[in-house]
Amino acid sequence: MATIRDIADKLGISTGTVSKGLNGANDISEQLRQTILETAVEIGYRPKQMRTKDNQKLCIFIENMEYKTPEQFGYDIILGFRQAAYPARCGVTVLPVTPEFQASERYDTYMLKNGYIGAFLVGFALKDPWMAQLHNTSIPTTLFDNYIRKNPSVCYIGTDSFEGIDDGIEHLIRLGHRKIALLNGSEHSMITEQRRQSFIDSMTLHGLEVSEQMMPYGYFVAAAAKDHVANLLSLGATAIVCANDLLASGVIEECRLLGVKVPEDVSVIGFDDIPLSAKLNPPLTTIRQDRIELGKCGFYTLNSLINHVSVCKNLLRPQLIIRNSTAPVKK
Amino acid sequence: MATIRDIADKLGISTGTVSKGLNGANDISEQLRQTILETAVEIGYRPKQMRTKDNQKLCIFIENMEYKTPEQFGYDIILGFRQAAYPARCGVTVLPVTPEFQASERYDTYMLKNGYIGAFLVGFALKDPWMAQLHNTSIPTTLFDNYIRKNPSVCYIGTDSFEGIDDGIEHLIRLGHRKIALLNGSEHSMITEQRRQSFIDSMTLHGLEVSEQMMPYGYFVAAAAKDHVANLLSLGATAIVCANDLLASGVIEECRLLGVKVPEDVSVIGFDDIPLSAKLNPPLTTIRQDRIELGKCGFYTLNSLINHVSVCKNLLRPQLIIRNSTAPVKK
Repeated sequence: MATIRDIADKLGISTGTVSKGLNGANDISEQLRQTILETAVEIGYRPKQMRTKDNQKLCIFIENMEYKTPEQFGYDIILGFRQAAYPARCGVTVLPVTPEFQASERYDTYMLKNGYIGAFLVGFALKDPWMAQLHNTSIPTTLFDNYIRKNPSVCYIGTDSFEGIDDGIEHLIRLGHRKIALLNGSEHSMITEQRRQSFIDSMTLHGLEVSEQMMPYGYFVAAAAKDHVANLLSLGATAIVCANDLLASGVIEECRLLGVKVPEDVSVIGFDDIPLSAKLNPPLTTIRQDRIELGKCGFYTLNSLINHVSVCKNLLRPQLIIRNSTAPVKK
Repeated sequence: MATIRDIADKLGISTGTVSKGLNGANDISEQLRQTILETAVEIGYRPKQMRTKDNQKLCIFIENMEYKTPEQFGYDIILGFRQAAYPARCGVTVLPVTPEFQASERYDTYMLKNGYIGAFLVGFALKDPWMAQLHNTSIPTTLFDNYIRKNPSVCYIGTDSFEGIDDGIEHLIRLGHRKIALLNGSEHSMITEQRRQSFIDSMTLHGLEVSEQMMPYGYFVAAAAKDHVANLLSLGATAIVCANDLLASGVIEECRLLGVKVPEDVSVIGFDDIPLSAKLNPPLTTIRQDRIELGKCGFYTLNSLINHVSVCKNLLRPQLIIRNSTAPVKK
């Protein structure tokens, strides 16, 4: 276990100055403070509050995701995390972050400076500054829907895409559908690639044909649907599986504009089961991710990492929620 | 929540008789008792001891695996499970089982009769009677190295095969090896197929050639090596990755008999890091599965299932342990 003395010796300064740097005193320069923090991270120093079992401080960093009200995707994830953290007497801070904020300070030094012993990162993009730093961090970190290879301090949690997509496709097959399209999310996202591969695997497993034309990339928003729906219908799709519920809501709207009836003319399936899904017209059949469970798993896996159990991946079961946007194929 | 009354009504018997059946009284027939238990399972009845939070009883069922002494593969798995269960005040029973035992009684009724609220199954084979029953069980069940599709009451834990195999192959590539073979375990095992696919993916990722001849199936025992080593060497293999440490120990022994030096003539890598590995001559480079961590994860995921968090897969990070059975490729 590295001590304040080790930091002082390495930098050739007094232990008193090191303490000031670690505790955020005003009478040393910001530059020296940063050097002290970075050295502390480098040699693996942990302040006292990070070594005791009670009142451990955890942080949820959230980006690209709304979470303030129950209708928003992130709300239940944070709630589930807090529900699991509470009996373990861990304090939880929720911090929205931007790429600019991440560029302004290293992840490890930010965590050390603020006494957080672990973090749950939600909604981050692959190109975010902190994502690159996670390859080398030794701070217990759980990521929702992002995966860092070979770092035993970092864990990925999410929902099993294959089981979800396959549930949807089996449901469509039972309804007589054979020409099934995938309207995917943005390219260069781990989840988009997972959904695509799951779709290919499931269709192949059931002996159905897949083609590039029937698996276009879009974006994870409703507006992305209008560029693709007419084309998919002209290719003969009788059902469209969408990479999330917002895209599915866009498909339903676009069909309405085109005079195509859902589900009589075309069946639509979403992914996520956000609160909006049940209120669409028609209510959306969708592959549910249980966000309360995801939040709880965020805490459980983070707690495992803190206790030196190096979880790599933790995936939850999805659940197909059948509503009215799917129906037997039109004869 | 189903009650004793529900069971009584369904069977057309008194609640007193149902209680006798559930409590194992002697004055009803074994056949009636079995009917009562099966009905209780069917309608989702949970006896009182399964509904309270304290002193919950869990069971570890173990098959095809030694676990009584620290040198044996199962020992640390059970130890880790107990270590995690203790602070949660769960009682843990360890029961070795055979296929005959499984055929003699349904999994669900056995659990209910004995008041176990969840189980960790270790070492089971795909063809075991209880494995087929797990597709429909509602009893929280965690499996080591076995996967049941789409049942939210069942979870799979293990070690990430791809990261492990890829660590081994990257190590061999740094030592100059290009002709790398995989001596695999038994066919028709989930783990064997995982190791094979991981090997293909990793070799392909690094631009190396794979062929069927260089990936033979064997068995997970030392004696299986003798059927394959001479052939792999004649095909030009300079390194052999083995699906477990016992196989690797067999490869080292077979090389000795053939007058081929390990690691000077051929490098050998195992998988597992059982205690034997460090004592081999030469000590074995191997891909470690941390069995204490696996045991702890067995408990954590089971506890998640009991608390209605439907974990599907939980994989741990492997760790490459470099010893003396690998060396630079012979010029």
